[in-house]
Amino acid sequence: MKLHGAVQALGAFGVCAAIAVCSQYITRSTAQTAKEGHPEAGNNASPIYGITIPAGYRDWSVISVGHLAGRLAGGNVRQLRAQLGNDIAIRAFREGKLPFPYGAIIAAVHWNEVSSDGNNKVLADGFPGAGLQSSVAGSAENVQFMVKDSKKYAATAGWGFADFKNGKPGDEALHKTCFPCHLPAKDRDLVFAHYAPTP
Amino acid sequence: MKLHGAVQALGAFGVCAAIAVCSQYITRSTAQTAKEGHPEAGNNASPIYGITIPAGYRDWSVISVGHLAGRLAGGNVRQLRAQLGNDIAIRAFREGKLPFPYGAIIAAVHWNEVSSDGNNKVLADGFPGAGLQSSVAGSAENVQFMVKDSKKYAATAGWGFADFKNGKPGDEALHKTCFPCHLPAKDRDLVFAHYAPTP
Repeated sequence: MKLHGAVQALGAFGVCAAIAVCSQYITRSTAQTAKEGHPEAGNNASPIYGITIPAGYRDWSVISVGHLAGRLAGGNVRQLRAQLGNDIAIRAFREGKLPFPYGAIIAAVHWNEVSSDGNNKVLADGFPGAGLQSSVAGSAENVQFMVKDSKKYAATAGWGFADFKNGKPGDEALHKTCFPCHLPAKDRDLVFAHYAPTP
Repeated sequence: MKLHGAVQALGAFGVCAAIAVCSQYITRSTAQTAKEGHPEAGNNASPIYGITIPAGYRDWSVISVGHLAGRLAGGNVRQLRAQLGNDIAIRAFREGKLPFPYGAIIAAVHWNEVSSDGNNKVLADGFPGAGLQSSVAGSAENVQFMVKDSKKYAATAGWGFADFKNGKPGDEALHKTCFPCHLPAKDRDLVFAHYAPTP
């Protein structure tokens, strides 16, 4: 697996991490049905599922935030992440409603983590000796979506998946990894993210 | 400074970090004016500024996310953070508008970071040997607000500040630290957070 593909799939984690198994879960039949059912499907739509970037998703409410660190294909991976939900998804999270209802969409936004020299200077002045390190969201890595439609995506437990980098969807091989990766979360309707508490 | 107070002030960072100087910036006159001007001021309002928790802030849009790590008063500090904005603030960020207009409110939400065993297991299966570590938002630490009102908060460069833990505002000593801490960001109207890019 190339670094780019691996990192992008990783970017999916929290919504989708790549596991190169079980690609048979995504049948040709599913692919055709999803494509035919999505008038917007095309170059800007995810393979298999035919999902495009939902308008205005960047303004959706926060489900939770996360951090990912490690090494992959010889390179460091350090990401800051946020999971956002449309109104239907947020309501379901708050009410603890499972499975998620029709129309729920979860966005996983992944940024490359960068140290904030400006913040660190202020922290060093305010808390000398504490060694506090602040990092913030840097460049965008990718964004991923789970779209709930139990009929359209019946073959993948009711969820369609999509992974975009620079506004363009990843390839079919990448998208074949989404569903099997989410299977360990089957008791939570394939959703990894938990709703973060409100202070 | 006690651990609790220090951590809470830290929680403020990205919006407010504690620096035990310049408390004279917050004059008695400002305090009285702010209190009188806020009918909601009371036990649930921040000292000095009289700000209560804005309804529905948890659903506001994301400005950016961040991570904070270090040691403070002998304890480890590890936080995941999100800065949220009301519509006025988000618009100003997107348009690069400075200073922020009347009514802009920025919320800094701080959670204690917890490792996700569930995520890590999926990652270990999908990326063997990568040593990937996932952490997510755990318990809520605190939430802080900056409220723009150039007249009401004229003595503090147009911003009022508030810091809440478990729904209760911190004390006056804590709130005296907000404004001087933000002064290093005076070229950006005292706002540390940058708007994270949209993938």
